[in-house]
Amino acid sequence: MSKQTQFQVHAVSPAYWKVTFENGPINLIDPDTIDELGELVTRMEQDPDLTVVVFQSANPDFFMAHFDLKSDIQRVYTTAPGPTGLLPHPDTLLRLSRVPALTISAINGRARGAGSEFVLHTDIRFAGPNAILGQPEVGFGAVPGGNPMGRLAELVGRGRAMEIVVGGEDFPAKLAAEYGYVNRVLPEGELDDFVDTFARRIAGFSKAGVSGTKEFVDAATAIPAGDYAAAMAAFRRTAGRPENAAHVRSLFERGLQQPQGIELDLGKRIAERF
Amino acid sequence: MSKQTQFQVHAVSPAYWKVTFENGPINLIDPDTIDELGELVTRMEQDPDLTVVVFQSANPDFFMAHFDLKSDIQRVYTTAPGPTGLLPHPDTLLRLSRVPALTISAINGRARGAGSEFVLHTDIRFAGPNAILGQPEVGFGAVPGGNPMGRLAELVGRGRAMEIVVGGEDFPAKLAAEYGYVNRVLPEGELDDFVDTFARRIAGFSKAGVSGTKEFVDAATAIPAGDYAAAMAAFRRTAGRPENAAHVRSLFERGLQQPQGIELDLGKRIAERF
Amino acid sequence: MSKQTQFQVHAVSPAYWKVTFENGPINLIDPDTIDELGELVTRMEQDPDLTVVVFQSANPDFFMAHFDLKSDIQRVYTTAPGPTGLLPHPDTLLRLSRVPALTISAINGRARGAGSEFVLHTDIRFAGPNAILGQPEVGFGAVPGGNPMGRLAELVGRGRAMEIVVGGEDFPAKLAAEYGYVNRVLPEGELDDFVDTFARRIAGFSKAGVSGTKEFVDAATAIPAGDYAAAMAAFRRTAGRPENAAHVRSLFERGLQQPQGIELDLGKRIAERF
Repeated sequence: MSKQTQFQVHAVSPAYWKVTFENGPINLIDPDTIDELGELVTRMEQDPDLTVVVFQSANPDFFMAHFDLKSDIQRVYTTAPGPTGLLPHPDTLLRLSRVPALTISAINGRARGAGSEFVLHTDIRFAGPNAILGQPEVGFGAVPGGNPMGRLAELVGRGRAMEIVVGGEDFPAKLAAEYGYVNRVLPEGELDDFVDTFARRIAGFSKAGVSGTKEFVDAATAIPAGDYAAAMAAFRRTAGRPENAAHVRSLFERGLQQPQGIELDLGKRIAERF
Repeated sequence: MSKQTQFQVHAVSPAYWKVTFENGPINLIDPDTIDELGELVTRMEQDPDLTVVVFQSANPDFFMAHFDLKSDIQRVYTTAPGPTGLLPHPDTLLRLSRVPALTISAINGRARGAGSEFVLHTDIRFAGPNAILGQPEVGFGAVPGGNPMGRLAELVGRGRAMEIVVGGEDFPAKLAAEYGYVNRVLPEGELDDFVDTFARRIAGFSKAGVSGTKEFVDAATAIPAGDYAAAMAAFRRTAGRPENAAHVRSLFERGLQQPQGIELDLGKRIAERF
Repeated sequence: MSKQTQFQVHAVSPAYWKVTFENGPINLIDPDTIDELGELVTRMEQDPDLTVVVFQSANPDFFMAHFDLKSDIQRVYTTAPGPTGLLPHPDTLLRLSRVPALTISAINGRARGAGSEFVLHTDIRFAGPNAILGQPEVGFGAVPGGNPMGRLAELVGRGRAMEIVVGGEDFPAKLAAEYGYVNRVLPEGELDDFVDTFARRIAGFSKAGVSGTKEFVDAATAIPAGDYAAAMAAFRRTAGRPENAAHVRSLFERGLQQPQGIELDLGKRIAERF
């Protein structure tokens, strides 16, 4: 297996891994991220003792910003499909949702686009008070590719899912919890301890009980692989259109993919036209 | 196309329509409403530029009261089925939920019965603080005809859907938001600006992104046309029963369908027996 | 029919039953409970006038504690299947969810494990401020047997369902209402009156309207009988494993199934290891 560079895996115990994501100044997701995550999911599928995994970010302001628009997106379309028969991005999301360990996102800072899709495919989302979630793809002229539509419809219902994915706005932690986008928001400074205590608790349970119980919840909320294929195809069809180009260029001019620019307030800023 | 008289369509721009409903002193829904709404939905289906539609009421106290019990209900059962194969009322609701534009209800005042069914078939429900929603049909001895059972089960879960449709009570804005019956409630005086800002934002997005994304959420929460046919049949079987007549008469005596009578507090008053 | 001893049925009127559960100092559920509940459900299925049933507990601290681990669990596996083809426990739960009357749990005190499964299969859950719900089975090394996974996934969404059933913690009334585990929590001292008023209201409605409307919500949220069979099989496979024995013994030493021991705080205490 190739060395993981964006995901640092710390085995607190054989049953409990803490995984820390770090990729550049704002934690963008690029084709390497997807490859590394795919390998990590395979390890999670195969480890006989692993019972719980916490995902966190090394960056307090950005959990996972979104897909890196300057990276080689063609690689995402042309890499061989994964075990589910899907392209690597949706393959990894779908397999992540099914691993026989409980997965928890401990969200600080921004999780937008593919970053929001990632947390939606972990089992539980606990948020700090500065967490911000969103699916800004429509603001780029695109249909989201990782099928957050399906996951959010199940989690928050049709009306709020429509508002989130079609509106493309930022959802701060408190509103995200009211909507059910995250499980709950912890008070300032309490997220890490809360999540660690919860994870240690799970790690002390029998894996047969944990994975056997998770399997039923997963089956009750399963989304057909075909929906992921369709979302990815819709993304591909809409994201690269020439009519989006001028707006995307203007977003880069205003600081897209920079730590101090419009990324801080992307949900609002993406709708501005000049 | 016949002239719309109950729905005034204001094209803020080719992408954004604001539709205002007005029908008598309490905005009752009658067979003409259903016909006009059917035509409006057809226009929304066919307009190539339309991206977002806001529905509002000219009456601050009644968004849409409910079906007009003094109108010619037989017309609803005997008019030819629409494109979905369903009778006009459910046909219009189902087609409305699928139009390739985002639809938003900006709810002030009461939306009960068929009015609640209407807002449940728009994509997003934003409410003012005086909004009141409910499905009082059971209080008339009837099963609701527009299948709010299916929509609410998906939106708020089995337990709260049971409480809403079987309990038949009024749900004021705040409780409706806590339950997920509406997306959220805005503070006094802020609803119109909030909705307009949101709609202008959507109108600025590419229609391909908006309608392509909506389609996935709609598919993930689709309700079979057969459920609508069954609900309409159950309404027809239960609504006209002779054993309901005395209670309905007493409701009219107490001000049913009048702006100052029991309509203000119908959820509570419908359960009173004399 | 055999005499009901654990469930006292008070017919407030032909349309409205109030059922009070009492079984020992902490309201444990044992094979007799399941038999009696099965008979009660049959009465509810057959009574032509019954429109609404309220379930309450004679014990203010324990609505229904959980399955009695000292009772004859083999009887649960070896009794003949019920009308659904399922073993008595899941058969009773599934049939309860379908009775042609509206069922309401008025929850004071603890409802955990099979007690939580019971309330999840009534139509509506109203809670007092001291209500506590939870599924601690995973803490015993087992997959829950009555498929709360399916019911909770539908009610609260995948993320919160995972937290509840895999985390196995206690959910106090307020958090349970925020998650949608219960419909709502009433202020101190108001639960009984609120529920009684609500039930009398329903009892005054036509049974055809009540049961006809409930049927649609139930159908929209139906869970296949096969899921119940699978959950029961998973429980049986995991609950009796030798590797759970030492922990269960230690729980009994610390007061399991006693009114003053760890039952007060079971969600937390079940994770402690010595």
